[in-house]
Amino acid sequence: MKRIDLNCDMGESFGAYRLGRDAEVIEWITSANIACGFHAGDPLVMDRTVALAASRGVGVGAHPGFPDLKGFGRRNLDCTLEEVKTDILYQVGALQAFCAAHRVRLQHVKPHGALYNMAVGNEPLARAIAQAVATAGSGLRLVTLAGPEAALMARIGREEGLQVVFEAFPDRAYTPEGRLVSRRLPGAVISDPDQAAERAVGMATGGRIQAIDGTLLEMEIDTLCVHGDTPTALALVQTIRRRLEGAGVALTPMGAEVGA
Amino acid sequence: MKRIDLNCDMGESFGAYRLGRDAEVIEWITSANIACGFHAGDPLVMDRTVALAASRGVGVGAHPGFPDLKGFGRRNLDCTLEEVKTDILYQVGALQAFCAAHRVRLQHVKPHGALYNMAVGNEPLARAIAQAVATAGSGLRLVTLAGPEAALMARIGREEGLQVVFEAFPDRAYTPEGRLVSRRLPGAVISDPDQAAERAVGMATGGRIQAIDGTLLEMEIDTLCVHGDTPTALALVQTIRRRLEGAGVALTPMGAEVGA
Amino acid sequence: MKRIDLNCDMGESFGAYRLGRDAEVIEWITSANIACGFHAGDPLVMDRTVALAASRGVGVGAHPGFPDLKGFGRRNLDCTLEEVKTDILYQVGALQAFCAAHRVRLQHVKPHGALYNMAVGNEPLARAIAQAVATAGSGLRLVTLAGPEAALMARIGREEGLQVVFEAFPDRAYTPEGRLVSRRLPGAVISDPDQAAERAVGMATGGRIQAIDGTLLEMEIDTLCVHGDTPTALALVQTIRRRLEGAGVALTPMGAEVGA
Amino acid sequence: MKRIDLNCDMGESFGAYRLGRDAEVIEWITSANIACGFHAGDPLVMDRTVALAASRGVGVGAHPGFPDLKGFGRRNLDCTLEEVKTDILYQVGALQAFCAAHRVRLQHVKPHGALYNMAVGNEPLARAIAQAVATAGSGLRLVTLAGPEAALMARIGREEGLQVVFEAFPDRAYTPEGRLVSRRLPGAVISDPDQAAERAVGMATGGRIQAIDGTLLEMEIDTLCVHGDTPTALALVQTIRRRLEGAGVALTPMGAEVGA
Repeated sequence: MKRIDLNCDMGESFGAYRLGRDAEVIEWITSANIACGFHAGDPLVMDRTVALAASRGVGVGAHPGFPDLKGFGRRNLDCTLEEVKTDILYQVGALQAFCAAHRVRLQHVKPHGALYNMAVGNEPLARAIAQAVATAGSGLRLVTLAGPEAALMARIGREEGLQVVFEAFPDRAYTPEGRLVSRRLPGAVISDPDQAAERAVGMATGGRIQAIDGTLLEMEIDTLCVHGDTPTALALVQTIRRRLEGAGVALTPMGAEVGA
Repeated sequence: MKRIDLNCDMGESFGAYRLGRDAEVIEWITSANIACGFHAGDPLVMDRTVALAASRGVGVGAHPGFPDLKGFGRRNLDCTLEEVKTDILYQVGALQAFCAAHRVRLQHVKPHGALYNMAVGNEPLARAIAQAVATAGSGLRLVTLAGPEAALMARIGREEGLQVVFEAFPDRAYTPEGRLVSRRLPGAVISDPDQAAERAVGMATGGRIQAIDGTLLEMEIDTLCVHGDTPTALALVQTIRRRLEGAGVALTPMGAEVGA
Repeated sequence: MKRIDLNCDMGESFGAYRLGRDAEVIEWITSANIACGFHAGDPLVMDRTVALAASRGVGVGAHPGFPDLKGFGRRNLDCTLEEVKTDILYQVGALQAFCAAHRVRLQHVKPHGALYNMAVGNEPLARAIAQAVATAGSGLRLVTLAGPEAALMARIGREEGLQVVFEAFPDRAYTPEGRLVSRRLPGAVISDPDQAAERAVGMATGGRIQAIDGTLLEMEIDTLCVHGDTPTALALVQTIRRRLEGAGVALTPMGAEVGA
Repeated sequence: MKRIDLNCDMGESFGAYRLGRDAEVIEWITSANIACGFHAGDPLVMDRTVALAASRGVGVGAHPGFPDLKGFGRRNLDCTLEEVKTDILYQVGALQAFCAAHRVRLQHVKPHGALYNMAVGNEPLARAIAQAVATAGSGLRLVTLAGPEAALMARIGREEGLQVVFEAFPDRAYTPEGRLVSRRLPGAVISDPDQAAERAVGMATGGRIQAIDGTLLEMEIDTLCVHGDTPTALALVQTIRRRLEGAGVALTPMGAEVGA
């Protein structure tokens, strides 16, 4: 039986600022990437989000980002490798305290935003990230892009002793080379829930993705990234989940999935 | 043989801002209270400070404070109990990641500044702090004031299952009731190294403190707090340490001391 | 003809975090209290909010708060008077730059949240606030509570050469002594739009407020504070505005109103 | 008679963190670039630094930087142009409030660190900076590098209606093309006070700089940048000032100098 993980960013509220519809989304996903207070999230939000995930059996992951709340971690920041390593270690450690408080084990780490993007093709940065995750705890999975774009990150992650988990995006178009089509280009985002759900089934059952020009790609895919921060996005998550279940795919947290 | 711990705040630098003379002070103390990034410190500084302490066999403690870098955690901030708990958990967890990276075990937690002071006589706040520390890990010691001022904190700490460690200040005057004389009053600070060192010996060998009016106090004392952020303060630490050793007192981290 | 000002907090978004429905609310109010980046708001948001207010002829006010984004400026913070003065001056100056850019004159200052509340009955703090506003520019109005609670603030504001503007809350119950009923007590908030609008008319036409026990209060009232951050709140603003206009009250910015 | 300005970064302390020796340096310079709270400085420090400069007749300039206190504004941050403009406007406005409080007029703006460096050769960024400065006030000078490196910044500054002020570094080596030799290369920094002072005289009297290979360069130079944050640096400032005075050069703030 085929298995797949559905991951979603969560815990992005901060103080009086509410972001996302975590309480609804949590019912449909299997892994949560929880913000750690640098680009989003705060200790109170982290505590509640870990508790929420724990109560639903959803895998808990750390979602560390650049120290840039105003930019939501989406702005490239030219840090030293030591800064990157220690910033990640700090954030992951902070989240682990909430995991311990709620008696769950941290499952994975997925770098956020600009930190995630800058590591593509940047070997020293990719290695700094991988080393920080390896240092933060044994058995932690590192989430990275499926396809050629993150081949470097995957290789380095494995060299540093990590289990690498590949994610694909059901609602994003891919180039024939297996890369994400830039959001600035037409057709980059697939907003029709049925179409996205159909793509999700192809991804989950055979690692298959039809590229924007019709080319059929195949890649190793362990988890599908979904968003639930708008009513439309939430509907998309629900459609994807139901269609996957209808196709006989088991939805399990990546912690269970990868090791099976 | 009598034993005592010498603790000092460390790791208070932030980015380009240098504070303290950690590399020198570390040679003379047995426990370090390391800032966790809210009132002082940053991930890079935390990493280096834990590494420094580990390399010298100095006990590592977390020094969590209010989220107030501009006020250095010295300004009272009216947080909810949930905010206090999760802010402490976050900071302690972050420091634990660096402890794991350097293969040392977190020894103690000592709240910083206004957080420490506000808890005196405030039962709900004291309990929130104690619960956060108890949640952060088993075997963590909680540092609190020796004497009547912190009797409440000590009782609550024990109720929450913590080992409570009492600290006294060799360079501060005490009232006949065993409280610290306010810094605003004359004679509150004892700046003469010999006099402070003599007091340290009395504290370490018999829990004895001569109050400002001559009254002889006796209290349970496990650790002496010293400062090393000025040339004078550093000289004071050195004098205290030498005098204690000359008096046959063993200087050991509180982790070793309390459990003996 | 009777005149009144309607003021509302605006510009409270921060980075990716959206708060409030400024674009809708702006159509119904006459003065905006714009967050200045310490408890809410950021430079981009401030720029847009000043531009929005300028385009609608809405009076622009500064809404400085404590440097506590996580607590949204609602947590008491024990600052020195010098810190309060310079924090206010900094925030007001920053907003003035955006006023100059959009060719409007800063009309008023209204301290936010805990800073506003802590000043009630605290003469040194009230004076620090008033002095900061007086220093920030000539002709700036200081908004304070109508009624006995802020008599001290009003006196001090006048001593420091400021025009003091009194605000009342149509959707809040008052004690027979003219103070706001604590939000923790039943009946403190008046959620029925018609009832609140009727109270607004009494406030605007005769400075009259019926206290929670039926007592009829009279006080000087220059501006009514409304909120527009929820669909219900927005409906309330609209109802209040329409009812005031129906009662023949002219709605004008406090800058025009007070000097008339 | 030849005239020159000596500028120095000041007001870089933050909360409990002290940086620089402003009280000593101020006696030797004619213009101060004052940090505005984003990469360094805080409202209390800004107030004191403006007061200090005003009391000595030293020209006051704003030194805005990226919102990155931890990185001291030295890390490249990929902001939008709107973010750059509004961040600068915010910071300059805040400083202007302290100028008004101390009855001095803001003289100039000098972008700090990564913001200054990223603008070299980046026309959209250079224009965003120039527009922000032009918007912040009429008559504001924009400080930029002397030599070819900042020719673009100078042209754009003038197009936006600003007076452009060129700065050179007496203690830095120049390439034959008139650019600063990278600090990573040997000989980049001239630490001998006499040699640096001699270079300062050449710069001030004839816009002459001897490049690292002996080539004699000539460029328009209005101000010399000095540092005073170490005992050595302070000695350097003093030597430069005395040598300039000995050579008959008048030291005047750039506000007076450029317009003469």
